[in-house]
Amino acid sequence: MTSELLHPDRLFPAEPAVRQITREIYQSIQALPIISPHGHTEARWFAENKPFETPSALFITPDHYVFRMLYSQGIPMETLGVPDKFGDAERNSRKIWHLFAKHYPGLFRGTPTQLWIDHALYEVFGVSKTLNAASADQIYDAISDQLNKPTFLPRALFERFGIEVLATTESAIDSLQHHKHLNQSDWKQRIITTFRPDSVTNPEHPDFLQDIHKLSELTGQDTHNWHQYLEALSIRRRFFAESGATATDHGFPTPFTTVLSQAQCQRFLTQSLEGTLSAEEAELFRGHMLVEMARMSLQDGLVMQLHAGSLRNHNSLIFDRFGLDKGCDIPLPVNFVEGLMPLLNEVGNNPEFTLIVFTLDESTYSRELAPLAGHYPAMKLGPPWWFHDNPEGMLRYRQQTTETAGFYNTVGFNDDTRAFLSIPARHDVARRMDSRFLATLVCEHRITLEAAMETAHDLTYRLPKEAYKF
Amino acid sequence: MTSELLHPDRLFPAEPAVRQITREIYQSIQALPIISPHGHTEARWFAENKPFETPSALFITPDHYVFRMLYSQGIPMETLGVPDKFGDAERNSRKIWHLFAKHYPGLFRGTPTQLWIDHALYEVFGVSKTLNAASADQIYDAISDQLNKPTFLPRALFERFGIEVLATTESAIDSLQHHKHLNQSDWKQRIITTFRPDSVTNPEHPDFLQDIHKLSELTGQDTHNWHQYLEALSIRRRFFAESGATATDHGFPTPFTTVLSQAQCQRFLTQSLEGTLSAEEAELFRGHMLVEMARMSLQDGLVMQLHAGSLRNHNSLIFDRFGLDKGCDIPLPVNFVEGLMPLLNEVGNNPEFTLIVFTLDESTYSRELAPLAGHYPAMKLGPPWWFHDNPEGMLRYRQQTTETAGFYNTVGFNDDTRAFLSIPARHDVARRMDSRFLATLVCEHRITLEAAMETAHDLTYRLPKEAYKF
Amino acid sequence: MTSELLHPDRLFPAEPAVRQITREIYQSIQALPIISPHGHTEARWFAENKPFETPSALFITPDHYVFRMLYSQGIPMETLGVPDKFGDAERNSRKIWHLFAKHYPGLFRGTPTQLWIDHALYEVFGVSKTLNAASADQIYDAISDQLNKPTFLPRALFERFGIEVLATTESAIDSLQHHKHLNQSDWKQRIITTFRPDSVTNPEHPDFLQDIHKLSELTGQDTHNWHQYLEALSIRRRFFAESGATATDHGFPTPFTTVLSQAQCQRFLTQSLEGTLSAEEAELFRGHMLVEMARMSLQDGLVMQLHAGSLRNHNSLIFDRFGLDKGCDIPLPVNFVEGLMPLLNEVGNNPEFTLIVFTLDESTYSRELAPLAGHYPAMKLGPPWWFHDNPEGMLRYRQQTTETAGFYNTVGFNDDTRAFLSIPARHDVARRMDSRFLATLVCEHRITLEAAMETAHDLTYRLPKEAYKF
Repeated sequence: MTSELLHPDRLFPAEPAVRQITREIYQSIQALPIISPHGHTEARWFAENKPFETPSALFITPDHYVFRMLYSQGIPMETLGVPDKFGDAERNSRKIWHLFAKHYPGLFRGTPTQLWIDHALYEVFGVSKTLNAASADQIYDAISDQLNKPTFLPRALFERFGIEVLATTESAIDSLQHHKHLNQSDWKQRIITTFRPDSVTNPEHPDFLQDIHKLSELTGQDTHNWHQYLEALSIRRRFFAESGATATDHGFPTPFTTVLSQAQCQRFLTQSLEGTLSAEEAELFRGHMLVEMARMSLQDGLVMQLHAGSLRNHNSLIFDRFGLDKGCDIPLPVNFVEGLMPLLNEVGNNPEFTLIVFTLDESTYSRELAPLAGHYPAMKLGPPWWFHDNPEGMLRYRQQTTETAGFYNTVGFNDDTRAFLSIPARHDVARRMDSRFLATLVCEHRITLEAAMETAHDLTYRLPKEAYKF
Repeated sequence: MTSELLHPDRLFPAEPAVRQITREIYQSIQALPIISPHGHTEARWFAENKPFETPSALFITPDHYVFRMLYSQGIPMETLGVPDKFGDAERNSRKIWHLFAKHYPGLFRGTPTQLWIDHALYEVFGVSKTLNAASADQIYDAISDQLNKPTFLPRALFERFGIEVLATTESAIDSLQHHKHLNQSDWKQRIITTFRPDSVTNPEHPDFLQDIHKLSELTGQDTHNWHQYLEALSIRRRFFAESGATATDHGFPTPFTTVLSQAQCQRFLTQSLEGTLSAEEAELFRGHMLVEMARMSLQDGLVMQLHAGSLRNHNSLIFDRFGLDKGCDIPLPVNFVEGLMPLLNEVGNNPEFTLIVFTLDESTYSRELAPLAGHYPAMKLGPPWWFHDNPEGMLRYRQQTTETAGFYNTVGFNDDTRAFLSIPARHDVARRMDSRFLATLVCEHRITLEAAMETAHDLTYRLPKEAYKF
Repeated sequence: MTSELLHPDRLFPAEPAVRQITREIYQSIQALPIISPHGHTEARWFAENKPFETPSALFITPDHYVFRMLYSQGIPMETLGVPDKFGDAERNSRKIWHLFAKHYPGLFRGTPTQLWIDHALYEVFGVSKTLNAASADQIYDAISDQLNKPTFLPRALFERFGIEVLATTESAIDSLQHHKHLNQSDWKQRIITTFRPDSVTNPEHPDFLQDIHKLSELTGQDTHNWHQYLEALSIRRRFFAESGATATDHGFPTPFTTVLSQAQCQRFLTQSLEGTLSAEEAELFRGHMLVEMARMSLQDGLVMQLHAGSLRNHNSLIFDRFGLDKGCDIPLPVNFVEGLMPLLNEVGNNPEFTLIVFTLDESTYSRELAPLAGHYPAMKLGPPWWFHDNPEGMLRYRQQTTETAGFYNTVGFNDDTRAFLSIPARHDVARRMDSRFLATLVCEHRITLEAAMETAHDLTYRLPKEAYKF
């Protein structure tokens, strides 16, 4: 039973010779510190260091991978404890856990969620049984009993997980109070923020008007004036950088970029604030703002990340009842080649600038992203993202990018998660899959074992540290 | 020779441990009844139960997979017995067979057609030799000799194949006389129809005007009036359902959907009948009709199937000379994410409604279809279709959908064939490839063997029965 | 060390049984003559038969695969000896070599460039050490010492490589003097040209005006007149054919085709020459010119090649400083289905005409190209091109095209290279990967070993000779 829950050779290829080399490579990187340069955990957890609440609040309610899949089988969101806009939801944590446990063995079979949850159950809580309807209570109790112990507090887990750096992501108008608290505390672990200005650079963001107003208050700039608006953004970037940020992040529906005249920018900004901007104009404004962000990166040295290609809130019923990030963001086909051309032509030849690009459209790996990253000094390829952050997705990523971009135009792994307990599991999956890909190259006499070992170490540790300037 | 024609381990992976587990899983599902929820065989065959004609009429002339590939090498369609619009074609069945046999070993090498035909030759007719120029006559005679035997009549083969349910596909104006005949006969096998209204919902369908007229006659509704037109469709759906149908099917060039006003619908219907509808307006009308069909499904409980993304009759010379379904339908890139949004926003959250989606654009598996099916309760993912209904296509399908949609948002296999004799072969290929995919997961310690066995059974038997409400 | 540089089993799968069959198939084709029907080597080399210059001029400066990857890591082009438009660049060949050698082991790890260069170093120059900073000088000297020996002159290498036919590619206005020289020489090897008229058929080509003028001079036709312009092209095609060409080649941004009226063509030609053609009109003109080229192929029997889908000179800084072909051409998504429809409808049913299509958009393999090639008698599928001409790309190609188009609608391998020394390496990679793909089918009992051997021979030798009419 134990071995089935978390077999030491899991994800390794079946062929004995390749498996043996995979093991060898994996063992050399398994225990390296975790570099987590992009994610959505909360600095508050570590600033306050309070116990996590219930098993359901830990594993189910905040994890859109989990409730999305349950919802797809007709299980109402509220029965999983996901609160609607009035805050209503099932409150009985054990009842939620039972509902989840009943569907867990079948519904999540073959999914990364199962890999991550089994890993956390076994490695964090010492659970050695498969979670199902029969074992639900016993496992619930086992987790609950441990959550209040000192060794299960956020800071203790952070240290146990061997995290060297953890980046969170905050809005441009965030006070960063928890990061400040952490910076001033005696606890000397590195938790840094990331500057994510979407709510003040995307006129179609639901909080745009409100956040532009706050941006003005925070910076003393008149954010109705184009130049002062840029200055306000620049001020906030410096504030983030001084607080420890080394990177920005941008999540737009497309990777379209463009360079507008200053007069045009002022007009679009005014229209945005008046609510008279069309969808086409909003796209132009976003496209120009990416170029402005790149220009500022050249000034302040912040690494620029671009997560493009998600159609947010595809399901309006769910969005209206439950709000953002409820599992109904769906990828779109995108065009990085034409989209990024204006930005790359302006700053892509500068090796001092770094643009890390992520895609939800795998058809762009070999057609667009590897050719671009294999040419422009500034551009690097982010790891498989979201729907593709899983074993098969990782194989496709390496198989479709390595021959054109090599390993050294990629930047290692990002866990990109809100689920703190899944961080070691996710990095472990990435290490296993990279080991496997490299072992296959070794066994096919395409690279030497020595080269594979070096590359595995680089992908796990050196490249993310360098790319994100840690 | 025999073993080469149909090796018991065919399609199983070479690695011995994975092969052994594949065998074990396959053996547990090999003999399960065939559930065939979507296809294009003819109810007439079973109603009349007359002998099939010649080997060529059985294997070549009606199978666009076969004559498409021969035509691609410059072999004229008419020499293969495919009649042009005047009914002219080679009539000498043995001559056609010889032409086919000569090209069979090379041209179909590595294609699913070879798998299907070898399977039928061996399993149905006991042929143990490879079909080629040298063996053509002997095999022709062996088949011919058997075709008139009682054990080779359509009903006998149906029983021998172990088919539990077989769905055919009929136009909305079909009389369903053969189904009626079968329902009333003593032969108690389940052959049901599927409601396919394209010729009355797609204004660009070649038979639109004629079939709209028949629809009016059959239902007593004025099909020039939007509300009566809808009522007429509803009446026919009930007629199909009463005759045994559990599903509808829709084959449109794109998965675009939209919701128009009733006034707009009336205008477009009128223009359609007057022949003044533009291509853009026809797309809008089709898009709205998909939503109307979904609404009706909510009323009458019929499962909705969508086969989108085929550009029909790409080759106008062939279409003009030989008509529809002559191997010159070519896939198009499609966008399910934006296309299906209006429909899914209206009815996709209702778990009582089922929409099964098929694609010819494999780039949508991981980008669009798995994310949508892994979220919306109503949406399920159909199996690999047409150009992708083959071993490699099946592997890609599972590799690209499982981690996001799981196994339980898919619906098992559809043979979707006009070639009755290929039905057992096609289901066998699907069972082998699913076994192989699952065995790989087992050997990589991603799922247990027990879980794999359960899933294999579900994919083969339980899921299609449930999804199609059999 | 030697074995790591060029292991005899490189690229073969690890599973012992499949490896054994791969070896067996490979050994049967390994020594077949090289058919090189499309590439960019220079006839001058063989006409003049002068020694190649320095190791850097041989391996680095002319190879955009090499300097593209180095540039992506911020290494300036000029330090690699790539001359800017004033001819400035690093001239110290040994210094360039050192810079390359330092980055070679890591940066090119897992790329085809490493496979090609290791192959050339070992097979051509007998180098058995890995190239790196430490071995740079020794290897540089080893190559330099040999370059002036008679056995390393272009003709000697041509013979040593076992090349049966080598096609170069020349502009429509090229004098073909080197080919003429070769035709008249005593050296009886077959080096032929290919007619590539882009600079006179694409109004957006940088040399359009100048080359149209030269075309007029060469043919005595008034190239401002549509009919005489066509006649001029026809004359040049005959000139190329008489000089040995069997094929044309067309490199356009998209595979769009269309049929315009003669009056429209005259108008667009006039606008092109006046510089008043819009981008949309240029696309229409190119689309029509592809149809004209196909019509001429029907007349003169030249095989037509289409390389579509590269956005040339994405990086304007590099283009402005260094010119064309500097590693900044990036693929675009393309649509062959709608794009090629006008052309295929006019000439695609004619088995006397051959259109060989290449793509940089792998999503089109299973969706568009295999279905089209598996139907139209005239259309064949070219091998994996450019960014996809590598081991993984070759596997994807066969896995995604074979089941729909078979092997016999493909045309074997093209090396498509400017790097003469990489020709044997590239063909060797293709032979190994085809052997591997076929061996997998054999071991999965999908084809017999005998069939695999025949197919391997056909893909390597017979198909390219037939498709290109050698």
